[in-house]
Amino acid sequence: MNETALPACTPDTGTDPQTLAEATVQAMYPRDNASQGLGMKILDIAPGRARMSMLVRSDMLNGHATCHGGFIFALADSCFAFACNSRNLNTVASGCSIEYVAPALRNDVLTAEAQERSLSGRTGVYDITVNNQDGKLIALFRGKSYRIKGEVIAGLHAAP
Amino acid sequence: MNETALPACTPDTGTDPQTLAEATVQAMYPRDNASQGLGMKILDIAPGRARMSMLVRSDMLNGHATCHGGFIFALADSCFAFACNSRNLNTVASGCSIEYVAPALRNDVLTAEAQERSLSGRTGVYDITVNNQDGKLIALFRGKSYRIKGEVIAGLHAAP
Amino acid sequence: MNETALPACTPDTGTDPQTLAEATVQAMYPRDNASQGLGMKILDIAPGRARMSMLVRSDMLNGHATCHGGFIFALADSCFAFACNSRNLNTVASGCSIEYVAPALRNDVLTAEAQERSLSGRTGVYDITVNNQDGKLIALFRGKSYRIKGEVIAGLHAAP
Amino acid sequence: MNETALPACTPDTGTDPQTLAEATVQAMYPRDNASQGLGMKILDIAPGRARMSMLVRSDMLNGHATCHGGFIFALADSCFAFACNSRNLNTVASGCSIEYVAPALRNDVLTAEAQERSLSGRTGVYDITVNNQDGKLIALFRGKSYRIKGEVIAGLHAAP
Repeated sequence: MNETALPACTPDTGTDPQTLAEATVQAMYPRDNASQGLGMKILDIAPGRARMSMLVRSDMLNGHATCHGGFIFALADSCFAFACNSRNLNTVASGCSIEYVAPALRNDVLTAEAQERSLSGRTGVYDITVNNQDGKLIALFRGKSYRIKGEVIAGLHAAP
Repeated sequence: MNETALPACTPDTGTDPQTLAEATVQAMYPRDNASQGLGMKILDIAPGRARMSMLVRSDMLNGHATCHGGFIFALADSCFAFACNSRNLNTVASGCSIEYVAPALRNDVLTAEAQERSLSGRTGVYDITVNNQDGKLIALFRGKSYRIKGEVIAGLHAAP
Repeated sequence: MNETALPACTPDTGTDPQTLAEATVQAMYPRDNASQGLGMKILDIAPGRARMSMLVRSDMLNGHATCHGGFIFALADSCFAFACNSRNLNTVASGCSIEYVAPALRNDVLTAEAQERSLSGRTGVYDITVNNQDGKLIALFRGKSYRIKGEVIAGLHAAP
Repeated sequence: MNETALPACTPDTGTDPQTLAEATVQAMYPRDNASQGLGMKILDIAPGRARMSMLVRSDMLNGHATCHGGFIFALADSCFAFACNSRNLNTVASGCSIEYVAPALRNDVLTAEAQERSLSGRTGVYDITVNNQDGKLIALFRGKSYRIKGEVIAGLHAAP
C-alpha cells in the first residue's frame, strides 16, 4: 500500500464504500505502531470487514511455550479495529471477549477475519475468528464498538 | 527476585501456600518472553492473587494515539496467568472478557490486580482491574481458567 | 413431535446423527418445564444446531415496557441447550454472554438460531442469534458448553 | 414498601441519593411483570447497588433437574437493572455475561447482589454475584449499562 495508491476522491460527490475502506486502512496502518511492531499484515479490507495475519514469534510465547493469549487477542483486536473504522468514522472498542479454542505454537501463521454482525446508531458488534495455517480454529473473538467524534481521514465521506 | 530467594522446600511435608505462590512466579516469569518484552513487573503475589505493572510505551499506541487494547489486555491476562498458576498447578485461560472504561495514554503506568472469585474442580474465575498511576480505572477484565496436567515446578506441593 | 415419531434405533449399529438429534430433543423437551412455561417452540433440530421461537407475552415486559432481557436470554439459552445436547451426550452451560442490539416488544415472535462454532474435547462454543418476526436482529448470544457424564437417552449412540 | 413510604421530595432542592434510590425501586417494581412473576424480592437498595432474592420453583428446572440458566440470569439481570436505574435516570442493558459456577436446585433461595464497578458518561459496568441460602457461589454476572433519555420518576433529581 504505497502513497500513489491513495484514492482519487471528490468530497462533493462522495467516495464509494470499498474505496473508502481501503483509504481508511492506508491512513490508519502507518500510525498503528502496535500492529506493525507485532508484524501484522492486512490481507483484505471491505466495508465492515477485514482480514489480517500474524506470525507467532518466539517473543510471543508464554511460560507454557504456547502463544501468549494477549497476542492472539491483539491480532483479533486489530482486525476488529480496521473493520469497525472502515467507513472512515472514528470508532473504538468498548469491550471484547475471546474464547481460546486451541493453542497457537511458534512459527504458526495466524489469520484473523472480522465480520460486522450488527451496526445501529453509535454501537456495533463484530465477530472475529482466528485460524492457523492449517485452517484450524484457534480463537473466537467478539468485539463491541462505539463510534466517537471525528473521521479517520477528515473530509472523506461515503457516497450516499 | 534472584535465584538465592528460591524457597527451601521439603516436598515431603509440603510448602506453605505463600512460599509456593512466590516460587511459582519465580519459575514462570523468566520463561515468559511476552510479559518481559512488554516490560511488565510483578509487584505482589499470593495464592490466587497477583499485582503487576506496565509502562505504556510509544510502540503500544494505536491509530487513535491511545494504548492499543491488546496491550491493556496482555497486562491483565498476564496478571490473571500468574494468579491462576500460583498454586503450582498448570492452568491456562479458556476465555476472557474485557471492558474498556477509560483510555490509557503514553507514559501511563498501569497496574493490574487479579483476584480469584471462584475455584472449583478444574475451572476458576478471576477478576482483574487495571488502573493508571492516578488510581483511575482503565479496564475491567474477567478470566476463566482451566487446569491442565502438570505442575509449574515439578514435585512441589502445597502443605495440606 | 408425538411418541410414535420415536426413532427405531438399534444400539448395536448406532443411530444416524440427525435421528439422534431429533430423539434427544423429544426426550429433553417434555422435562424442560422452563422452556415449556415460556411457550418456546422447537422449529428445527440437527447435530449441533437448533431453531426455536417464543412469543413476547405481557408478563415478560420490564419497567421500560420492553421484553425483560432475561427472557430473550432464556430463549437463546434453551436453543443453545438443545443444540449442544443434540449428540445425546449430557452437556451444560459453563458461561454465556449476550449483546442486546434492539428491544423486543409485546407480541413480537422471536426466533433463536443456534450454530456450533467449535467442539473439542469436553468444551464447545455456540453462537445464537435472536431475530424478531421482521428479521430484525434483537440479540447476539454466545454460549460455552461443558460435557458432563451421562447421556440424555441412555444407551443411544451415534453411528460411527 | 408501601405507598405511604414515598419520599417527601422537593424538586427544587433535590432528593438525597438514598431516598432517590428507594423511590426509583418503588416506581419500577410494580410495573416489572417479569420480576414479580418470577417471585423476586428486593432486599436492599442504595445508589448503584441492589440485593434481591428468588426461590427456585419447579417450573424453573431444566431437563437436567437443575435451575434453568435463564432464571439465574433473570435474577441477576433484574438486580443489575434496579442498581443501574437507582439514580432515577433511565438506563438499559447493552450486554451481559454470566459464568455458572455451581448448579442451583429446587427450593434453593438465591440472593443476587449488584455493585457498580464503573460509571462514566452514559455507560456503566456492574458486577452481580448470585449465592444460594448456604452462601455458596452459584454464578458471576457482569452487566454493561447504557443510559437512555428520561427518568424513572419524572422530575425527581439527586441533590447536588
